[in-house]
Amino acid sequence: MSDSEQPTVGPRHYQIPEGDDRERLTCPDCGFIAYENPRIVVGVVARAEDERILLCRRAIPPRIGYWTLPAGYMELGETAETGARREAWEEARAQLKLTGLLAVYSLARIHQVQLIYRAVLTDPHVEAGPESQSVGLFHYSELPWDELAFPTVRWALEQDHQAHMQGHGEAFANPTAEED
Amino acid sequence: MSDSEQPTVGPRHYQIPEGDDRERLTCPDCGFIAYENPRIVVGVVARAEDERILLCRRAIPPRIGYWTLPAGYMELGETAETGARREAWEEARAQLKLTGLLAVYSLARIHQVQLIYRAVLTDPHVEAGPESQSVGLFHYSELPWDELAFPTVRWALEQDHQAHMQGHGEAFANPTAEED
Ligand SMILES: [Zn+2]
Ligand SMILES: [Zn+2]
Repeated sequence: MSDSEQPTVGPRHYQIPEGDDRERLTCPDCGFIAYENPRIVVGVVARAEDERILLCRRAIPPRIGYWTLPAGYMELGETAETGARREAWEEARAQLKLTGLLAVYSLARIHQVQLIYRAVLTDPHVEAGPESQSVGLFHYSELPWDELAFPTVRWALEQDHQAHMQGHGEAFANPTAEED
Repeated sequence: MSDSEQPTVGPRHYQIPEGDDRERLTCPDCGFIAYENPRIVVGVVARAEDERILLCRRAIPPRIGYWTLPAGYMELGETAETGARREAWEEARAQLKLTGLLAVYSLARIHQVQLIYRAVLTDPHVEAGPESQSVGLFHYSELPWDELAFPTVRWALEQDHQAHMQGHGEAFANPTAEED
């Protein structure tokens, strides 16, 4: 895309393709249709052995300096679970074992679906990766509620706490004998 | 994209952008980076009051004539739940109430994440939409196992049955007071 907001090559006009029922971003030169889809964010609520919860203080926009869960865009070629573990490593050098899916959040306005997993740290050592200013482990009662980066971080922390207190069934995933 | 496999305008070269750690599809003319992400499929295992399960016989490729669950790509601007209900309407004219998330399947090789919900039909009337040859309601013991379109359809039917027999906790979703 050029410096202007309006690209001058590639998909840049919205029109309804034949046989479709909604507008798609289309290239007027070659007819290529860029189907835009919601993006998947994978993240984790990871607890240490003493039940403290891992948070990262953001070193990148938006919300620099605020606390968030290890999370980021799922990449091609990985499973959601692999992506969640990758983000925990990239942002907090955390090694962990996933224990199930906590929640699915649909953020329709920003075109995101977040898949948040529960996890336990398998190594107590954590440290800031390149996208974090620092990392911290917090007991639930000591969480920095006023300095959380996004509403979904609060949702996940509260729901993880509820699951922790009351038990929580998990959604299924790929059958273990049949991982893709 | 032109008739050839290789597009000649727009993003068409793989290279690693500065500060990134993997190859992205980039336009050599203007530098536009097309971030490719896994696509989200939303679907449902919907049961009638008599516990029969709704399937659709596909009228479109791939796997024309085989049975599948109502499912399709999540669109921008909808939640996963709204998308699952939309697909049930489009493919089977089914009206339903979602009862929770059954499973998340990662199909890394085909760049898909499937979110499969459980549901009950709120109206017994169903009929084929434009992408279905026909629709059917099947007791679990009578399901057309040899004519299922995809492995994930079998996974979902088996896991829904397991959930139905043994109970099944659900993952959380957006808190109801805070839907996006
Ligand atoms: Zn074009
Ligand atoms: Zn370009």
